[in-house]
Amino acid sequence: MVELPHFDSDGHARMVDVGAKPITHRVAVASGIVKMQPRTLKLIQDRQIQKGDVLELARIAGVMATKRTSDLIPLCHPLRIDSVDIEFQIEDDQTIKIVASVSANERTGVEMEAMTAVTAAGLTIYDMCKSVDRAMQISDVRLDEKSGGKSGQFRRNGLQS
Amino acid sequence: MVELPHFDSDGHARMVDVGAKPITHRVAVASGIVKMQPRTLKLIQDRQIQKGDVLELARIAGVMATKRTSDLIPLCHPLRIDSVDIEFQIEDDQTIKIVASVSANERTGVEMEAMTAVTAAGLTIYDMCKSVDRAMQISDVRLDEKSGGKSGQFRRNGLQS
Amino acid sequence: MVELPHFDSDGHARMVDVGAKPITHRVAVASGIVKMQPRTLKLIQDRQIQKGDVLELARIAGVMATKRTSDLIPLCHPLRIDSVDIEFQIEDDQTIKIVASVSANERTGVEMEAMTAVTAAGLTIYDMCKSVDRAMQISDVRLDEKSGGKSGQFRRNGLQS
Amino acid sequence: MVELPHFDSDGHARMVDVGAKPITHRVAVASGIVKMQPRTLKLIQDRQIQKGDVLELARIAGVMATKRTSDLIPLCHPLRIDSVDIEFQIEDDQTIKIVASVSANERTGVEMEAMTAVTAAGLTIYDMCKSVDRAMQISDVRLDEKSGGKSGQFRRNGLQS
Amino acid sequence: MVELPHFDSDGHARMVDVGAKPITHRVAVASGIVKMQPRTLKLIQDRQIQKGDVLELARIAGVMATKRTSDLIPLCHPLRIDSVDIEFQIEDDQTIKIVASVSANERTGVEMEAMTAVTAAGLTIYDMCKSVDRAMQISDVRLDEKSGGKSGQFRRNGLQS
Amino acid sequence: MVELPHFDSDGHARMVDVGAKPITHRVAVASGIVKMQPRTLKLIQDRQIQKGDVLELARIAGVMATKRTSDLIPLCHPLRIDSVDIEFQIEDDQTIKIVASVSANERTGVEMEAMTAVTAAGLTIYDMCKSVDRAMQISDVRLDEKSGGKSGQFRRNGLQS
Repeated sequence: MVELPHFDSDGHARMVDVGAKPITHRVAVASGIVKMQPRTLKLIQDRQIQKGDVLELARIAGVMATKRTSDLIPLCHPLRIDSVDIEFQIEDDQTIKIVASVSANERTGVEMEAMTAVTAAGLTIYDMCKSVDRAMQISDVRLDEKSGGKSGQFRRNGLQS
Repeated sequence: MVELPHFDSDGHARMVDVGAKPITHRVAVASGIVKMQPRTLKLIQDRQIQKGDVLELARIAGVMATKRTSDLIPLCHPLRIDSVDIEFQIEDDQTIKIVASVSANERTGVEMEAMTAVTAAGLTIYDMCKSVDRAMQISDVRLDEKSGGKSGQFRRNGLQS
Repeated sequence: MVELPHFDSDGHARMVDVGAKPITHRVAVASGIVKMQPRTLKLIQDRQIQKGDVLELARIAGVMATKRTSDLIPLCHPLRIDSVDIEFQIEDDQTIKIVASVSANERTGVEMEAMTAVTAAGLTIYDMCKSVDRAMQISDVRLDEKSGGKSGQFRRNGLQS
Repeated sequence: MVELPHFDSDGHARMVDVGAKPITHRVAVASGIVKMQPRTLKLIQDRQIQKGDVLELARIAGVMATKRTSDLIPLCHPLRIDSVDIEFQIEDDQTIKIVASVSANERTGVEMEAMTAVTAAGLTIYDMCKSVDRAMQISDVRLDEKSGGKSGQFRRNGLQS
Repeated sequence: MVELPHFDSDGHARMVDVGAKPITHRVAVASGIVKMQPRTLKLIQDRQIQKGDVLELARIAGVMATKRTSDLIPLCHPLRIDSVDIEFQIEDDQTIKIVASVSANERTGVEMEAMTAVTAAGLTIYDMCKSVDRAMQISDVRLDEKSGGKSGQFRRNGLQS
Repeated sequence: MVELPHFDSDGHARMVDVGAKPITHRVAVASGIVKMQPRTLKLIQDRQIQKGDVLELARIAGVMATKRTSDLIPLCHPLRIDSVDIEFQIEDDQTIKIVASVSANERTGVEMEAMTAVTAAGLTIYDMCKSVDRAMQISDVRLDEKSGGKSGQFRRNGLQS
């Protein structure tokens, strides 16, 4: 059977031993989108200019959640993150794209940290706007790129799609 | 301007005062999907029968994250959760649906707790399988139903879609 | 000897039993100031208008820390906070005043939550501006008012000082 | 405009990238004072000799909070602390001075860790004694010294004041 | 098969729904022992009188861990604890007994909180003394009594053994 | 007096300075047992085969608690753990042995991490089965082996007893 490294040969969950791996510079970029009604997106944009910036608050939530990744994902290693950067892009009149970039000098990658940053930012946008648009959705949360480590460079096919 | 209750009239973020609201029984159901390659889904299913159950581990992660919701979402109230239930449904040969139901007797709803449960479970599935399928995606994270509180019953249109 | 309730008659620390106290509406207001160079304060004010709002970030940090009070203060009871509101006032050209108001329906007061909110907001202002003004100071962190509970109303003498 | 490194050129908050900085030995010393009524200070001193040591409890709280700094301060890097030492000095009959020294071998400094240690210890003194002296104040929380890193040595002017 | 309530009928873990249970006054008492060399125990006792009180520090650790119980035990409900009291008894020249009493007004019991308090206090004694006695053991961690709730009073047989 | 390194010469608790110690590969193995009624153990074993695996859940709890060790044990250093492995052995018809192995490349050992893993797994077994066997006990929690660091190799006498 194809092995999943988080399980040993008896199928028991474990935190994989990364002790023998070299410390290298790791980068991961993940993204996701939040779909909403156009008037909700307009409200977020208007507020950014005026007062009550939903996206800045979501950004902070994403950065802080990144630091809690190993508390949330059972078999994740606790890491010292070197940087977290979260950007928002207006894709169309009902879509905000969240892009999180995380880096660390570590023995294992920071994919889960980048994915966690995206979801926490997305959940916070939902929380801030749910009173006006309960049907918002978080979608397409995925890893776009990673580098560093033995498995080397990963770049998602059709990254712009 | 349409008001977002998490901001006061000056646009300052705050934890909304729920002190005057009655304690009522609150329920929220949220869901999301994880898209993967058919061979990844088959691996998860094979392991469930044999050894190393990815979904049971994701379930635990989801329950535990539910209890951390107010640590992750900046303006969420800390709540005493009464129940958390997370189910997985195989939608098709490349899709696992996650459904989280949360309840509490509280002054405010548990939507964010249910949404957080879904995303933490989804992130854990990703983490467990990322070595074989880095392109997995978490999508359609949304609120399906809520009840309790002044805003009453919410049920998403086209819930079965 | 005057008794401190957090110690029993043998001088052993304990979490005081509040189980027999009635649930009442508790409010606490605490404040503190951050002293800095006038050019630092001007920088904060300029950025508020333009980009990179130090105070909004400090506000979020204060709200989130309020929820962690019982993790930080050893003998504090874990509480369900109903509201947190943090305001900033420019006192003079080198002083920002932080005022935090917290409320809960609980068996014990929320003074420590309000004090914790003020210090976390102050520490965050320090962190954001320390590269330009390492000598900033946080001072006069104190309880201004409390109400609810057996000890009743407290209002600091010379509150405006 | 003078730049604050925690914001990028668009004014967006981020965790600053420290990945290219060398690991050096970092030390920071911060201090603050707690002002109280002379009889409160006498009570603390009497108890230290007899039973129920307020300051030892505040010390533990300070050490433990130091480890939570990156959970509390939104843009702080998570660090591996090498040492934390917290001392108390009786300044006069109504003033306890708290001095926290923190060190780490890291890519970024430990100023916030030392400042957080001081405030958590101060808040705990307040919590322990608030039933007898609600008007206590925490003041003059500041960085006294730092060393290590590119910005080099910092020593507060008039450190003894 | 005998049912374990933390699993549903499909064997899936869940946080049991306690929402329909009445809020009652819950008490639980748990205990455990730490076995060590007589000279280690003597060292602890000498230090209690003189300086560096291992047991007071273990007590604080126990109280603080009680508040984290639902973070540690996956299916535990988050509760508002009303009181925590931890006592130490010297059983013989190589045995310290730890007794933790916890109470809450809640829909579910506080057994796990009391058990967690005992183990955290025991682990802290171990940590404090491990440099002089690495072979210390924590044993007999168990529930002694509980009251409140539908299952009513429990009192361990041979409680004094 | 024999010194305990967690106290300074004045008897004040501190986080010991490990900054000058070299980073070495650290391993610790700890174990403990859970005593229960034979029918409880049989229930756990039956469920492992069928549905609702108590031990897998306890394993996850143990791994996750390992990452929280420095939050629980006041003077423990925060560490980057490289691996956690938790195994269960059926000792006899009423005894499950828990063995936790932890490793890290750090300046200080991982004994407390291994001990914490064992107790969290034990507490979770208790929590899962307490409705059918309230008298279960956790015993013999101890360090079996450690290696790495100046104090070198430790191996418990009579390890198999």
